Amino acid sequence: MHRRIHRSWKTRAAAVAVTAVALATPVAGQRRDLQKPLVLASQGSFFVGGDTKSLGTIAGRGGPAPAGDVTVNQMYVSYQVPPGAERRLPVVMVHGCCLSSKTWETTPDGRMGWNEYFVRRGRSVYLADQVSRARSGFDASTLSAVRAGTLPPTALPPIIYASHQIAWTVFRFGPSYPQPFPDGQFPVEAAGELYKQMIPDLNALLPSPNPTWTNMAALAVRLKGAVLMGHSESGFFPQQAALIDPSGIRGMISIEQPCPADLPAGQVAQLAKIPALIMFGDHLGDVQGGPANWAASLQSCEQLAVRIKAAGGDIEVMHLPKMGIKGNSHMLMQDRNNLDLADLILQWIDRHAEPYAKGATRTN
Amino acid sequence: MHRRIHRSWKTRAAAVAVTAVALATPVAGQRRDLQKPLVLASQGSFFVGGDTKSLGTIAGRGGPAPAGDVTVNQMYVSYQVPPGAERRLPVVMVHGCCLSSKTWETTPDGRMGWNEYFVRRGRSVYLADQVSRARSGFDASTLSAVRAGTLPPTALPPIIYASHQIAWTVFRFGPSYPQPFPDGQFPVEAAGELYKQMIPDLNALLPSPNPTWTNMAALAVRLKGAVLMGHSESGFFPQQAALIDPSGIRGMISIEQPCPADLPAGQVAQLAKIPALIMFGDHLGDVQGGPANWAASLQSCEQLAVRIKAAGGDIEVMHLPKMGIKGNSHMLMQDRNNLDLADLILQWIDRHAEPYAKGATRTN
Repeated sequence: MHRRIHRSWKTRAAAVAVTAVALATPVAGQRRDLQKPLVLASQGSFFVGGDTKSLGTIAGRGGPAPAGDVTVNQMYVSYQVPPGAERRLPVVMVHGCCLSSKTWETTPDGRMGWNEYFVRRGRSVYLADQVSRARSGFDASTLSAVRAGTLPPTALPPIIYASHQIAWTVFRFGPSYPQPFPDGQFPVEAAGELYKQMIPDLNALLPSPNPTWTNMAALAVRLKGAVLMGHSESGFFPQQAALIDPSGIRGMISIEQPCPADLPAGQVAQLAKIPALIMFGDHLGDVQGGPANWAASLQSCEQLAVRIKAAGGDIEVMHLPKMGIKGNSHMLMQDRNNLDLADLILQWIDRHAEPYAKGATRTN
Repeated sequence: MHRRIHRSWKTRAAAVAVTAVALATPVAGQRRDLQKPLVLASQGSFFVGGDTKSLGTIAGRGGPAPAGDVTVNQMYVSYQVPPGAERRLPVVMVHGCCLSSKTWETTPDGRMGWNEYFVRRGRSVYLADQVSRARSGFDASTLSAVRAGTLPPTALPPIIYASHQIAWTVFRFGPSYPQPFPDGQFPVEAAGELYKQMIPDLNALLPSPNPTWTNMAALAVRLKGAVLMGHSESGFFPQQAALIDPSGIRGMISIEQPCPADLPAGQVAQLAKIPALIMFGDHLGDVQGGPANWAASLQSCEQLAVRIKAAGGDIEVMHLPKMGIKGNSHMLMQDRNNLDLADLILQWIDRHAEPYAKGATRTN
C-alpha cells in the first residue's frame, strides 16, 4: 500500500504503459473486421468559404485575358459517413506543411490510414485541403503580376518546399539522413512514397487571419458540432478556429506542433471551454539540425496545458513514450502503430468530446 | 418500307432520340438504388511515377535551406473498388484545365458525381490529379529561383487562371456571361460552387512528354488493363498515353477536346488498335468570344475518327444533340442529366472496351 501511495513518476509511467499495452491487445484482435467491405451511408465533397476577387487582367493561354473575377480562399473538403454516424461527433482532419489530405489516407507502405479507420469505427470523417494547397487552389494573381512585370520578384511568396533530407530529420525518421532510429515506427523503407506527398506550401500568400481557420470554424457550425484535428503546421488550427468562432467546435486535437507561449489570458479562458488533446511522438530531441525543435514544442504545449487547466479546462497531453509507446515519428498517422494511436484518439473523443457535446447541446 | 430505307438524316436523328429517351426511362427507374448504402471492397490512394530532382538551394521557412532532393512529376491517384469489380475493367478519370479530380465528384449543386456512380454500377474508379496540379504538387524550384533573383521573372510559367466570366462561355453555360441557355443542362444556380473548383493551372512548368501521359500509361499497366478517360485539356491524354505505351489501355474516352489534325499515319494506326469514344455536348457554336472553338474541336475529332475507322479502328463520336440529348455544357459530368450520360459511357464500355479487353487478354 505504501508503494502504491508514494509511487514515483517512473512507476506511474510504467503503470500507464501497462494500461496502454492492455488496451492495445484486445483492440488489435478486433481489427479482423478491417478486411470486411466498407459500408458508407454517404460520401462526397464540397467547399467551405471562398471570396470573389476582381482582377484587372488574368493570365490565360498565350497571354493576358480580359478582366474578370476569380474565387479565392475556398477550402476543399471530402467526406465519408458510415451508417449510424449521426449519433456521433464527426472528425475534421487538416494536414500540415508541405502536405495535403493524402496525409490521412493510405500510408506510404500501403496500410489503412486514419481516414478510413475512423469511418470504420463509426465516425464521419471530413478531410480538408488547406486554403492555398492542393484541391483548394491558391491565388495566382501575384505570380502572374510578377511574370508580367507589374510586381517585383520580391513580391513572390517564400515557398516552403521540403527536401527529402530535411523531411528525414524534421519528421524524425532518424538522427540524421539517411540513418533510421533502430526503434522507429515510421516505415522508412517507403519514405520515397512519403516524398511524393510533399508539395509546395504557398501559405505565405494567405491573408490574415488564415482563411483555413475561418473555414474550419464554419465547417464545424455547418456540421452542427465537430471535433477538429490538426497536425504540425495546422496543429494549433483547431484552437485558432475556436478563437474565431467556438460555437461548432466540440473537441480540439493537436498532433505535434508548437503552442504559443504568450497567449492572452482571455484566449486561454476561451480555449479552456472546449476539451483538447495534444499528442507527441518519440525522439523529440534526438535529431540533428533542421528548422524544428520538437522538444521545445512539447514543452510549450505542456506549459499552455497548465494554464488551460488552471482556467478550468479539460486538456490532456499524450507524450507517447511516457505511455510506453516508443519510436513514433512526426508522421504518426502513418507510423506502423498508427491504428493503435487512432484508438487512443477515438477513446479520448468518446470520453471527453462526446460528453462535452451533449452538455453543449443541452445549453444551446 | 420506302421511308425506312430512304429516311433522311433528320428522321434518323429523331429515331436515335427516341432510342435515347427509351433508354433513359428504365435507367432512371433503376436509380432508386442510389439511396442505398455504398459498399466498397476497398479504397485508398497512391502515387504513380515521380522523379528525384537535386536542388542547389531549397526555399525554406525564413530563407533558403541547404541543398537537397525533391520529388517531382508524381501523379496522385485515389481509388474505390466495389465488390466483384475484378471481373470488370477499371476506369481512370483525369480532369481538365484549371480543375482537379473534384470535377468527377459531387456536382456543384450537390448531386452524385460520376466517380461514385461508376462504382455503384460495378466499376473500380481511379481519380488522378494531373501532374503539377492539386495533390500531385508541382516543381516550385523555378518560382523560388525567380524570387531569389537567380532567374528572371520571364522564367515564370504562364499560369492559366480562368475567371468566372471566361468559364461561363468556355464551359457553355450560356451565350454570354451571365445569360444562361434556356435549355442548358448545367445547374447555373450553383455556378459559384464550380468557380471554387477552378484552380491555377501550372502545366506550362511540365517537361515533355507530359508526365501525366506517362503516368496514365503506367497506371493502366499496373491495373492489368484499364479504360482511360480525359476531359477538355486532358481529353486527348488517353491517346497520348497510348502512344507512349498502349499495353495496359483497353479503351479511350475523350470528353470535349480538340483532336490533332496532323497526326502521322503510324500514330493513327496505333490508336486504331484500341476502342475509343468521343463525346461532345450541345451549343458548340452558340457562345460569344473566348479562347475555345468547340465546333471546330468536334469537327477535328470527326475528321480523326474517319482516319481511325479507315485504319480499322473502333471509334464512336457521340455528339449528344444529334442523339436527341439537348442542352449539355462542357462540364457534362456535372450537368443535370450527368447520370444519363454516364449510362451511355458505361454501355459503351460494356459493348466495346470489355470485348476488346477479353481479346487482348487472350493474345497477351
